[in-house]
Amino acid sequence: MLFERIVSEGLAHYSYIIGDMKNAVVIDPRRDCDVYVRMVTREGLRITHILETHRNEDYLIGSVELASRTGAEILHADSELDYQYGQPVEDGQKIKVGRYSLEAISTPGHTPGSMSYLLYDPSGAPWVVFTGDALFAGDVGRTDLPGLDRLKEMTGLLHDSIFSKLLPLGDEVIVCPGHGAGSVCGESIADRVITTIGIERKTNPKLQFTEKDEFIEKVGKEQERPPYFRKMEELNIAGVPILGALPMPTPLSPGEFSEAAEKGIVLDTRWELGFGAAHVPGALNIWFEGLAGFTGWFLTYDHPILLVNETDDPEEVVRVLIRMGYDHVPGYLSGGMLKWHMAGNNSGSIRTITVQNLCQQLDKGERPWILDVRSQAELDKGGIIPDGHHIHITRLPERLDEVPRDKPITVFCGSGMRSMVAASFLRREGWDDLTVILGGLSGWKSKSCPIDL
Amino acid sequence: MLFERIVSEGLAHYSYIIGDMKNAVVIDPRRDCDVYVRMVTREGLRITHILETHRNEDYLIGSVELASRTGAEILHADSELDYQYGQPVEDGQKIKVGRYSLEAISTPGHTPGSMSYLLYDPSGAPWVVFTGDALFAGDVGRTDLPGLDRLKEMTGLLHDSIFSKLLPLGDEVIVCPGHGAGSVCGESIADRVITTIGIERKTNPKLQFTEKDEFIEKVGKEQERPPYFRKMEELNIAGVPILGALPMPTPLSPGEFSEAAEKGIVLDTRWELGFGAAHVPGALNIWFEGLAGFTGWFLTYDHPILLVNETDDPEEVVRVLIRMGYDHVPGYLSGGMLKWHMAGNNSGSIRTITVQNLCQQLDKGERPWILDVRSQAELDKGGIIPDGHHIHITRLPERLDEVPRDKPITVFCGSGMRSMVAASFLRREGWDDLTVILGGLSGWKSKSCPIDL
Amino acid sequence: MLFERIVSEGLAHYSYIIGDMKNAVVIDPRRDCDVYVRMVTREGLRITHILETHRNEDYLIGSVELASRTGAEILHADSELDYQYGQPVEDGQKIKVGRYSLEAISTPGHTPGSMSYLLYDPSGAPWVVFTGDALFAGDVGRTDLPGLDRLKEMTGLLHDSIFSKLLPLGDEVIVCPGHGAGSVCGESIADRVITTIGIERKTNPKLQFTEKDEFIEKVGKEQERPPYFRKMEELNIAGVPILGALPMPTPLSPGEFSEAAEKGIVLDTRWELGFGAAHVPGALNIWFEGLAGFTGWFLTYDHPILLVNETDDPEEVVRVLIRMGYDHVPGYLSGGMLKWHMAGNNSGSIRTITVQNLCQQLDKGERPWILDVRSQAELDKGGIIPDGHHIHITRLPERLDEVPRDKPITVFCGSGMRSMVAASFLRREGWDDLTVILGGLSGWKSKSCPIDL
Amino acid sequence: MLFERIVSEGLAHYSYIIGDMKNAVVIDPRRDCDVYVRMVTREGLRITHILETHRNEDYLIGSVELASRTGAEILHADSELDYQYGQPVEDGQKIKVGRYSLEAISTPGHTPGSMSYLLYDPSGAPWVVFTGDALFAGDVGRTDLPGLDRLKEMTGLLHDSIFSKLLPLGDEVIVCPGHGAGSVCGESIADRVITTIGIERKTNPKLQFTEKDEFIEKVGKEQERPPYFRKMEELNIAGVPILGALPMPTPLSPGEFSEAAEKGIVLDTRWELGFGAAHVPGALNIWFEGLAGFTGWFLTYDHPILLVNETDDPEEVVRVLIRMGYDHVPGYLSGGMLKWHMAGNNSGSIRTITVQNLCQQLDKGERPWILDVRSQAELDKGGIIPDGHHIHITRLPERLDEVPRDKPITVFCGSGMRSMVAASFLRREGWDDLTVILGGLSGWKSKSCPIDL
Repeated sequence: MLFERIVSEGLAHYSYIIGDMKNAVVIDPRRDCDVYVRMVTREGLRITHILETHRNEDYLIGSVELASRTGAEILHADSELDYQYGQPVEDGQKIKVGRYSLEAISTPGHTPGSMSYLLYDPSGAPWVVFTGDALFAGDVGRTDLPGLDRLKEMTGLLHDSIFSKLLPLGDEVIVCPGHGAGSVCGESIADRVITTIGIERKTNPKLQFTEKDEFIEKVGKEQERPPYFRKMEELNIAGVPILGALPMPTPLSPGEFSEAAEKGIVLDTRWELGFGAAHVPGALNIWFEGLAGFTGWFLTYDHPILLVNETDDPEEVVRVLIRMGYDHVPGYLSGGMLKWHMAGNNSGSIRTITVQNLCQQLDKGERPWILDVRSQAELDKGGIIPDGHHIHITRLPERLDEVPRDKPITVFCGSGMRSMVAASFLRREGWDDLTVILGGLSGWKSKSCPIDL
Repeated sequence: MLFERIVSEGLAHYSYIIGDMKNAVVIDPRRDCDVYVRMVTREGLRITHILETHRNEDYLIGSVELASRTGAEILHADSELDYQYGQPVEDGQKIKVGRYSLEAISTPGHTPGSMSYLLYDPSGAPWVVFTGDALFAGDVGRTDLPGLDRLKEMTGLLHDSIFSKLLPLGDEVIVCPGHGAGSVCGESIADRVITTIGIERKTNPKLQFTEKDEFIEKVGKEQERPPYFRKMEELNIAGVPILGALPMPTPLSPGEFSEAAEKGIVLDTRWELGFGAAHVPGALNIWFEGLAGFTGWFLTYDHPILLVNETDDPEEVVRVLIRMGYDHVPGYLSGGMLKWHMAGNNSGSIRTITVQNLCQQLDKGERPWILDVRSQAELDKGGIIPDGHHIHITRLPERLDEVPRDKPITVFCGSGMRSMVAASFLRREGWDDLTVILGGLSGWKSKSCPIDL
Repeated sequence: MLFERIVSEGLAHYSYIIGDMKNAVVIDPRRDCDVYVRMVTREGLRITHILETHRNEDYLIGSVELASRTGAEILHADSELDYQYGQPVEDGQKIKVGRYSLEAISTPGHTPGSMSYLLYDPSGAPWVVFTGDALFAGDVGRTDLPGLDRLKEMTGLLHDSIFSKLLPLGDEVIVCPGHGAGSVCGESIADRVITTIGIERKTNPKLQFTEKDEFIEKVGKEQERPPYFRKMEELNIAGVPILGALPMPTPLSPGEFSEAAEKGIVLDTRWELGFGAAHVPGALNIWFEGLAGFTGWFLTYDHPILLVNETDDPEEVVRVLIRMGYDHVPGYLSGGMLKWHMAGNNSGSIRTITVQNLCQQLDKGERPWILDVRSQAELDKGGIIPDGHHIHITRLPERLDEVPRDKPITVFCGSGMRSMVAASFLRREGWDDLTVILGGLSGWKSKSCPIDL
Repeated sequence: MLFERIVSEGLAHYSYIIGDMKNAVVIDPRRDCDVYVRMVTREGLRITHILETHRNEDYLIGSVELASRTGAEILHADSELDYQYGQPVEDGQKIKVGRYSLEAISTPGHTPGSMSYLLYDPSGAPWVVFTGDALFAGDVGRTDLPGLDRLKEMTGLLHDSIFSKLLPLGDEVIVCPGHGAGSVCGESIADRVITTIGIERKTNPKLQFTEKDEFIEKVGKEQERPPYFRKMEELNIAGVPILGALPMPTPLSPGEFSEAAEKGIVLDTRWELGFGAAHVPGALNIWFEGLAGFTGWFLTYDHPILLVNETDDPEEVVRVLIRMGYDHVPGYLSGGMLKWHMAGNNSGSIRTITVQNLCQQLDKGERPWILDVRSQAELDKGGIIPDGHHIHITRLPERLDEVPRDKPITVFCGSGMRSMVAASFLRREGWDDLTVILGGLSGWKSKSCPIDL
């Protein structure tokens, strides 16, 4: 049989394909869906069904795209919503996959209509449950997305889904969730790529609140919601536009790039060091691995995106962007910064210093205005640094007025990567004297800098 | 700089991509044109022009497809014809490729408006000439396609193109033709994958007829024209339909396949031995490497094609078929003949015997009706076999009445592959007692069978 | 973190690699071990330990090969045996993998010193247990290999290992066994590629015999032991010879192949149909997917192996053969059977007929001597066919005298593949009139042939 | 037939493989020779001969490695030398490649025993000549390597080889040389990847000196000789050590790397920007594409090499290094500079400024000490910059005393890449105040900086 988890890095999104004998089913496909088609072609299987566990808000689901290529039937979960494609799936509905079968289990909470899918093996024994964003390894789905007015209601529903529907399946049932560690859909998803009902029952911190009231109180809380979620929701209900082939940006000479950049936004996906040393003036820096996590906070949908990256092949960057609906990426800087400079252009730069240098400054009594862009959870766990002013990176756009415009700003995070994102954003907003700390808190702790924590 | 020949096996079609600095030009692209897009993406180049050397008749040109993906301008050669896309190219027109340039040279003969393209290197020296189907390694383009009434005229034009336009470029200029050995567009194209004006001038048999009259007499002759050429011509003038992604046939169970086959034709691309042993009743056999050469003689465009192949991945087969416009390939037999038999189906078979067995039969005085499907050229070169009845495989459909229906038929060719194609066709047409000779003439000669040649 | 199962098809052998932070551990590596090196190189990890769950007898373990490339330490399980490489691992010994840790758990039974390895996640919770051949999905390891005199003892040990060591780990612990469905190391391993303690506790048929005595009686029995097991055992104790790069057989012309074949054995890995139609006289047929399962029964180690296959690339065949210690594969027939026949050589053939044809024969009252080479388990489950003489294919070499030499033999199995293996073996042993039934029992049942079952 | 050029980027080394029917010949193989083995395996050919055109000094030839894997016979050219492997090839010696044949033609000059190989097509016509380092596109081989005392003698021999041996082959013969543009073996090799005798006769600047005396005077001159040439020469005569598999460096944590670096040299292959921003103190920077060209000038063979690169996969870097005999590369920094900083380590940096910034400095009357590391040829062609002190980068190690130690040094080249190599070297040698100009001469010209040229 065919049983694969397909990971979309960055989003930490897990989709699954299950196939046997002659048909296959895909659960929560991503938008660049060639990967599923290749798998079934190799195995001689036909994708007959596409199952959605819930309406997603952190990425565009590939159901319509995949259906257009394969003729598969789409079953979407949230019958409460006004979906404009596919068919709703009902609690208890069964779908055959060769000798295996899947059963839909209503597990609302993350969204009002979330479904899980239980896979029975040929003997009829429950084997694997695909829980979408209801239950993760080490965490549960957030319940604040349907609105804060419904927070208690949704959290209560999630409690019931987990304690009355999922846990009773038995400790031995394998759990395949919709996201892994690093997703914005769970606060603290664990690293283990596969888990079981029993492991979660015993070790998942959220599942220790067995009482519904306590669960509602402790688990139900507001979390960050990147602005792009709104667009994801709309499109995921309306049906995501079909791409066909992956759109390929045009290679642009420095002159052409410069011109195109005037009407768009420059997104530079290089590492923090190269970006800091030199970049196209006005560029926003989000390193490649951080694209899925941070693009949605800093890029709107109303401007074309012009790319600068390390190599000349923009395919992987485009792949990540279209998963979040950034489909308008008309060009990239061919030959990169080397060609930019060889054409005689000027470039911007942002100073970088190591943690040791910062410590020396502090030892000397210098007191830079330190902007610490780590999350509250990181602060709680890792400690704060003296004199740091905390604004989580994702809040920066809305809390800009807290950053003084008349002082040198030193940006600090866990490693230096997010600091450069923040610094590039500040530079675009007019700040000039910016320094990024390389190594971040990790480096800080390694060196036991001689200051209070 | 980028300089690559892209070979489409089977058709022995050569397309070329040349790129430098920031732009690239593709000459005579094939329809499945992802290969060019990948190359320029990797190099950071933009395809700005697509050049056609002539209106092709043996394959569908990928100009429109490639233009739709890249925005490149199409320059087609045959301004005499009523093209419905792109722009005509004029004799002497220049196209820049970075520091290099291409110049169009009118070289009519194969078609009335055939163009060659001369590539100058940055110093301005002529370097490479792309001759399309005007001049090949060891051969010249056929001149019978515009019609037999224009045969002399076209052959005369070709003489002038070669002797007054191409040869004067200088012995040292490299020649990149539109086809290699094995193409139906030249009778006897040589094996050398690259050549020069001088090598052709000295060794190309057709170029030894320097006098125009002799050239017209000796070179201008009718050659075979597969029925599918007509469709290629029409579409290549009208503009080939855009495919987008490669169409993917559906895997079918034996039951579904059986049903679908009733309204279509079964094309089995396995080797002669497996096909001979067992095949879906009614299947036509054309082994994979022979697809480009023989499909056009035996398959019409009015039926869906159902595939049987060795493995479960039909992609490569589909790729070859769509190059010839066979776009309607709805399904393939998933699991192949193994699953066919495991479903309890009956299958057809065609007897195979070795050359040695045939010799023994002949020695014993048996006289089977031997159908020799080799070409006249092969007969001239390799010799005939005693009692063989010669019908070139491509003529078989129209000369069926020459094959006796009341006798056992033994089919013979060069190796056994084409014999099985012919036998599968005869079986479809009602012949029952068929034997294919394994090894063909090659085996025959190795064993010096004790009979007159 | 890195967590991958590496499947060696055919052997249905599962090896695992676990990595985190900077080091990685490989459990039961295969001999062609480039796959592990590639994985860790990509992730920037170093393989520090190679763990063996037990001394294997169905394949050559890659520990020494992998250690020679990486400098990793080998920990072998069976301290009772006289291993000539690596270090023994002790019950309770811990190995760190970044933030995770592995603990050795003594689980004897399949071999006297079998070890399982329990993986704890960073929180210290038991997560995954690698059970080697102690516990499979749906089955347990065989206990007859240490000798029939120790059968009860070993089966008792296995009972204790499972019921006192593994099951107490908790229903929720994920089980990663050493083999999947299709292995010769378990009778009836289930299809599910991953399982849990709880699923096995509830559904594994062997685990329903909770009482030790009953377990010993029902589970402890002799199973087939291919002759090549003896060589595997020896080498796996002595330390498997290092290969370095994969040995590559030389392409041979028909003439060279013919000569080489005189001192070796011809192994033809094509499908049953092509082989039946024509093969090098004297060739043994084992289709590619069947190589791991059947080579050990029919090929000894004292002759060089000469290959015939469908394509010209023998790499995958060599890969399977060296996993079982068949390292001496000096050449293959370049150009395959096509070139063989084109060189004028004769070939052997074996008749194939469909199930329907067989039924017709039977209906007419013909009574061929039917050799049914399915296993006893298949007979029990699928039914016998009338007049069939049952000899499991693996017993054929030792029960040859039961097959009449003076009658036409019709060979029958589940699909036709093993029938051709058996027929090719009989042909080598002197039988002449052989017929293979295409479709086998599967086809038989589909057609409800009008005879008693 | 098989005819491929295999390019080793960086070295701009061209090797060739020619195959037909059943055997293949490789000309001047590189040391990582898996590429040839894969090609012939796919085609079912056997490599029977390895031909060397001459004793190379810019890379280690792969003859012994490839022979050890294939059993092919090595024919080396320079019978004058005391080769310790293979057999010498004689002028006029013929080697069959299927229906084709190769003939050795003695063409001394670059080395005393250089051979070219003329490929005849099956008709017996000369088709392609492999000229090694005797004749390039747009250049000829250097003649100073056998020693300046033999310079006139060797240049005279080269004249005779070209004018009496190669040109008489005919304008139409295709020329396949041993190097392309960018090689250190020719001063000014042209960009055209393939050429002909006639194109070279007409356009090659060196071939315009038809008179022997003039040729000797104008062509025979001393050129740069990287120190590593000496080692290449020795090993290429003695027989290059066999590698087996590619050696794979170990991933090292920052701490381990730091320790290992004390006994070795750190080679950082990142782009100039990232390196300038932060690097392991003491690291030498040579960007990846520049490795083949510059490593031999700056790295000796007596220290282990520790790698820092952009990604975690060091394979491509190792591949380039072993081609020049740098086999001792024990480790690389796992996780790169990010992990280095996260471990709290300090790093070095080198200032980078754009051409525009430099121009502004100059406009203001500032006069930095500008070190221009371009070659004399670049200066001649592109012009000098005011106040620049010219030391070609390759001379830097021996002319260090010309660089003032008490002034800020600004390094300038064509683009900025070599400047960073030079700056990293200077930093290792004790210079502290270093600035690299981004964009170099190319940027300079684009902006027409307001100063005299």
